Amino acid sequence: MAKNMTLLWCTGSCPCWRAMIALEEKNLQGYNHQLLSFDKMEHKSQQVLDINPRGQFPTFKHGDNVVNESYAICFYLESQFKSQGNKLIPDGPEEQALMYQRMFEGLTFYDKLGNVIYYDWYVPEGERHDSALKRNKDALVAELGLWEGYLSKQGSGSFLAGKTFSLADVVVFPTVAFLFRFGLSAGRYPKLEEYYALLKDRPSIKASRPPHWLEGPEEELLLKEI
Amino acid sequence: MAKNMTLLWCTGSCPCWRAMIALEEKNLQGYNHQLLSFDKMEHKSQQVLDINPRGQFPTFKHGDNVVNESYAICFYLESQFKSQGNKLIPDGPEEQALMYQRMFEGLTFYDKLGNVIYYDWYVPEGERHDSALKRNKDALVAELGLWEGYLSKQGSGSFLAGKTFSLADVVVFPTVAFLFRFGLSAGRYPKLEEYYALLKDRPSIKASRPPHWLEGPEEELLLKEI
Repeated sequence: MAKNMTLLWCTGSCPCWRAMIALEEKNLQGYNHQLLSFDKMEHKSQQVLDINPRGQFPTFKHGDNVVNESYAICFYLESQFKSQGNKLIPDGPEEQALMYQRMFEGLTFYDKLGNVIYYDWYVPEGERHDSALKRNKDALVAELGLWEGYLSKQGSGSFLAGKTFSLADVVVFPTVAFLFRFGLSAGRYPKLEEYYALLKDRPSIKASRPPHWLEGPEEELLLKEI
Repeated sequence: MAKNMTLLWCTGSCPCWRAMIALEEKNLQGYNHQLLSFDKMEHKSQQVLDINPRGQFPTFKHGDNVVNESYAICFYLESQFKSQGNKLIPDGPEEQALMYQRMFEGLTFYDKLGNVIYYDWYVPEGERHDSALKRNKDALVAELGLWEGYLSKQGSGSFLAGKTFSLADVVVFPTVAFLFRFGLSAGRYPKLEEYYALLKDRPSIKASRPPHWLEGPEEELLLKEI
């Protein structure tokens, strides 16, 4: 069905998961894919670099068209397969405005998550400061407050941009799932928990969940005090 | 013409400039706008916070629809005013793939620029490290190499996604203009210079250039050795 598509990916990557949810939503199952290892530095392998000079996952090709950035993959697939699978951009101006706004706020959300859970990975040992990590945690708490507010305003059972699942959910859901994977308190963030529960078993999401999550929980619940 | 639109902005912001270029390209001149001061912290004023809980520029409203993220504004305007002004998303799959890919790489490009020119602004004094700033500069040099390569491959006189000006140019051009504003060497980056020259007097870009740039050059040419 999608034999002329190739995805090189790794497990436990929000950007890869976004791309894979979009592929599922557009009924593009059956694409060629190869699960590579980030730990073994396979994102810097020649196979990846030949398609993606940045040496990153995901790396994606449709025919001769290379689209590697996860948001770009989402937009490209929705545009090229508009009438196939689920429609991911709503028609109404109001829903569209909200969808685009939440999609791009989603990048900030993901950054703020990453600045906490990947702090030691991003920052070399001699450059780490407790004050910086504390600031990053405070920024994540403020960010979580915004999203609790957005979801609260939308009301129960709603998606990020209204009554239908959209690209905003495709790109933001993985961030929410990572939050709970890393120990976020459902009690302190009930709207995010409700949103997570609403979507976690959606077929596109279930089919593309990071496979290593099946092996067990995270060892370090870095967000449990947040 | 665009009386039901309001933009709150500041001079010298790439995100604001992106939004303003898009408004010009879609023939949406005549929108309400207010030039506020970042230095005076007016992005945290009640006027901004009422529309934009993040307290950031740009802050944008069309009727009751709030769209503050610059990329979101671009997508929203192109979608809502598809047949007005210049068409900013090409039809062909190949051009679309390239456009989306370059747009989202543009966020990384802008981040890498910001990690150098705004380093002292982002990082509190006691947390600064020469090793970090050097790494950021090296990352910017590598990034510049990628874009030189992309433009070289496209050929002279080409836009980022091919023969026509697109959303990729709307969002990436301000970054390129900032590079040269902060002293980037045209000799070392000839393709970026050529691209800059191709676009700098385009009406949409000229009409929206940061007004304080007319007052004189930057005092610190932070990129002149890059």
